[in-house]
Amino acid sequence: MCPESIKVNSDKLTRFVTTCFQKAGMPSGDAAIAAGIVVATDLRGIDSHGVARLNNYIKGLREGRIKPDPKTLVISKAPATAVMDGDHGLGFIVGYRAMQEAIRRADIAGAGFVTVRNSNHFGAGGNYSMMALAHDMIGISMTAGAKGMSVSGSQGSGAGINVLSIAAPANKETSFVLDMATTVVAAGKIEIAVREGKSLPEGWAVNRQGKPLTDPKKFREDGGSLLPLGGLTALGAYKGFGLTVAVDILCSVLSGSAPNNATMGNHFFGALRIDTFIPADEFKNNMDEMFKSYRLLAKAEGVERITLAGEPEREIEKKRKAEGIPLNPAVVASLQGIARDLGIEYSL
Amino acid sequence: MCPESIKVNSDKLTRFVTTCFQKAGMPSGDAAIAAGIVVATDLRGIDSHGVARLNNYIKGLREGRIKPDPKTLVISKAPATAVMDGDHGLGFIVGYRAMQEAIRRADIAGAGFVTVRNSNHFGAGGNYSMMALAHDMIGISMTAGAKGMSVSGSQGSGAGINVLSIAAPANKETSFVLDMATTVVAAGKIEIAVREGKSLPEGWAVNRQGKPLTDPKKFREDGGSLLPLGGLTALGAYKGFGLTVAVDILCSVLSGSAPNNATMGNHFFGALRIDTFIPADEFKNNMDEMFKSYRLLAKAEGVERITLAGEPEREIEKKRKAEGIPLNPAVVASLQGIARDLGIEYSL
Repeated sequence: MCPESIKVNSDKLTRFVTTCFQKAGMPSGDAAIAAGIVVATDLRGIDSHGVARLNNYIKGLREGRIKPDPKTLVISKAPATAVMDGDHGLGFIVGYRAMQEAIRRADIAGAGFVTVRNSNHFGAGGNYSMMALAHDMIGISMTAGAKGMSVSGSQGSGAGINVLSIAAPANKETSFVLDMATTVVAAGKIEIAVREGKSLPEGWAVNRQGKPLTDPKKFREDGGSLLPLGGLTALGAYKGFGLTVAVDILCSVLSGSAPNNATMGNHFFGALRIDTFIPADEFKNNMDEMFKSYRLLAKAEGVERITLAGEPEREIEKKRKAEGIPLNPAVVASLQGIARDLGIEYSL
Repeated sequence: MCPESIKVNSDKLTRFVTTCFQKAGMPSGDAAIAAGIVVATDLRGIDSHGVARLNNYIKGLREGRIKPDPKTLVISKAPATAVMDGDHGLGFIVGYRAMQEAIRRADIAGAGFVTVRNSNHFGAGGNYSMMALAHDMIGISMTAGAKGMSVSGSQGSGAGINVLSIAAPANKETSFVLDMATTVVAAGKIEIAVREGKSLPEGWAVNRQGKPLTDPKKFREDGGSLLPLGGLTALGAYKGFGLTVAVDILCSVLSGSAPNNATMGNHFFGALRIDTFIPADEFKNNMDEMFKSYRLLAKAEGVERITLAGEPEREIEKKRKAEGIPLNPAVVASLQGIARDLGIEYSL
C-alpha cells in the first residue's frame, strides 16, 4: 500500500458518504445532511472528526445502537428554551435539528437554547454553532464527550472530554469560530499522532498513575488520560476542569440525563439573534475592526501573522475546496472497508 | 505597623463600605447593594477583588469618572434579550441591575441575556452569576477586562484579561460556581503575590519581550502580561485566547462598544430558568449526584479530597462569616486612608 495521502473532491466524497448513510438505513434527506456535516469537517481541516470516524457511525447504525430514522421530540415550556429527546438518532441529525430549533426560537424570542438527551456522538462542535451565522446570530454548541480527562487530584479518567464552540459573524473578515475540547488538546489529536508516527508533547496526557505519557501508541494500554486545559494545577488546570463540568451541567444535568455518564449523547445548543441587541451590520463591522486590531499588534520575532479562531480553518477550507481533501492511507482503507461491508462501489 | 492580618466582622465591614459609598455620593440603597457585593467577594476568599480595591472605586466616584447615581437604560427588542446602557455607573450597580433584568426575562421567556456598555469594573464575576441561584436558574456573567494578556505571536499586552462565570444550583451540595479569568491566573493574583512577597510560578506571565517573568514586583516596570489559559501554544494557549475573544464579542461587540478597548465597562449576563427544561428538583438532585461521583474518584497519592468549582469558596465563606474576614496590613492602611479622605470614622 502506498503511504502517500490521496486527494478527493469534496462533492464526490459527500456523495459517497451520503450513499453510505443511506445504505445503512437513513432516509435520503437525513443522509445528505449528515454527509454534508462530515465532509464540512474534513474541508475545515478537522481531520480527527471527519470521514476518519465514518466507520464508527456506520457500525453504530448497522448494529442498531444508532437509530437511522429517529423520531426526535421537542419538549418546551417557554419561548426561548426547550429539551430535545434525540431518540438515539445519529448525532449529526439530532444536533442539526436541535440547533435549528434554537435558531427558530432565537428568531422569535431573541435567544434560543436547546439541551439534548439520547443523541449520539455529533462530531465537531463548530458544525452546529456555525449554523447560526447565516441567520446573523451568534451560535453556541456543546457536547459531553467520552470519559478521557484526568480530574486534578484523582487517578484515571474521571471526566469527559467535553466540547465548547462559539461562532459569530463578521462582515468582510471571516467568521469567528471557536471550537475546542476542554482538554489541552482534542482526543482526535492522539489518533492523528498515531497515524503520523509522532510523539506527544509533555503536558498533553498522563498514564493511569498520573505520570506524563508521550508515546501515543501506548495511550490505550497505559490507561492514558488527557489533561484539562491548563495542564498543571499551578497553571490553571482547575479552570479547564471547571469548564468541563460547566459543559456537562448544560448538556447532561439540564437535559435530565445522568451527569458525567459519557454516552456522548448529551448536547447543548444556543443562538442569540444579533439585531435584537444592536443592528447586525454594526455588529459585523465591529467584528471586522476587532480582527484588524489583533492583526496590527506588534509581532514576536519570527511570527508572520496573528490569527483568530476560525481563520486557519477557513483558509484550509478554501484550499481543500479547490484542490480536494487529502485522505490518509488508513482512512482510505477504512472507507474501502465500509464500501465493501455495505455492498457499494468505492470510486474515490 | 504590625505585619499581621487583622480579622474583621463581615457585617461591620459591610456597614463601613456602605458608608464609604454613601459619602462618595451614592444613594443609600445602591451603596448597600455595592457594599454587599464587595464584602461577599472577601467572604468567599477572593481577596484580590474585595475591599482591597475599594480605593479605586471611591477614587473613581470622587473624581467623576464613575457616576454615583447612574440612570441605567434598558433597550430591548425581544422577550429574551436586551442591551443595558450603564450611564457610567459603578460596575456593581450596573451589573446588579443587568443581572436582575436577565433573571426577569428568563422568568418569562425561559432564557434572558443582557449585554452591557458604559459600565465600569464590576469586581468578581461570580457575584452576578450567583444571583440566579435563588431563582432556580443557571447564571452566567462575563466582563471584558483591562488589557493585560499576551496574545500568542505578539509582543506586549494585546488582549483583555476577561472573566467568565457560570453558576448552577444543587440540592444538598453547595452550588457549582465557576468564576475564572481567561488568563492562566487572574491579575489580582499578581497583586497578592506582591503583598505576600512571593514569586510567580513560571508560565503565569511574560515581560514585554515575551520572556518569562517571575518577580511580581517587576511586573509593571518590565511591561508584564499574563499568558492566556493554556500558557504555551503547544499546551492550548490559543484556546484561552479564543475564550478571551469570545467573551469580548459578547460583552463589547454585541453591546455596540468598540471591541477590545479595555474600558472594563462592557459586561454580559445570562440566566436560564431550569424548570423550563426539566423540574428544578430533578436538576438539583442530579447536581448532588454529580458532586458525589467526582468525590468518589480514586484519589492520587497525597490528595485528601477532590473539589468542584465553588466548594472551596463556600467553605471559606462559612469560616469567615464565623471568624471574620482577615485583612492584610496594606488593605487596612488603604481603608484607613479612605476613611480619612471621606471624613468618616475608621472603627474596624
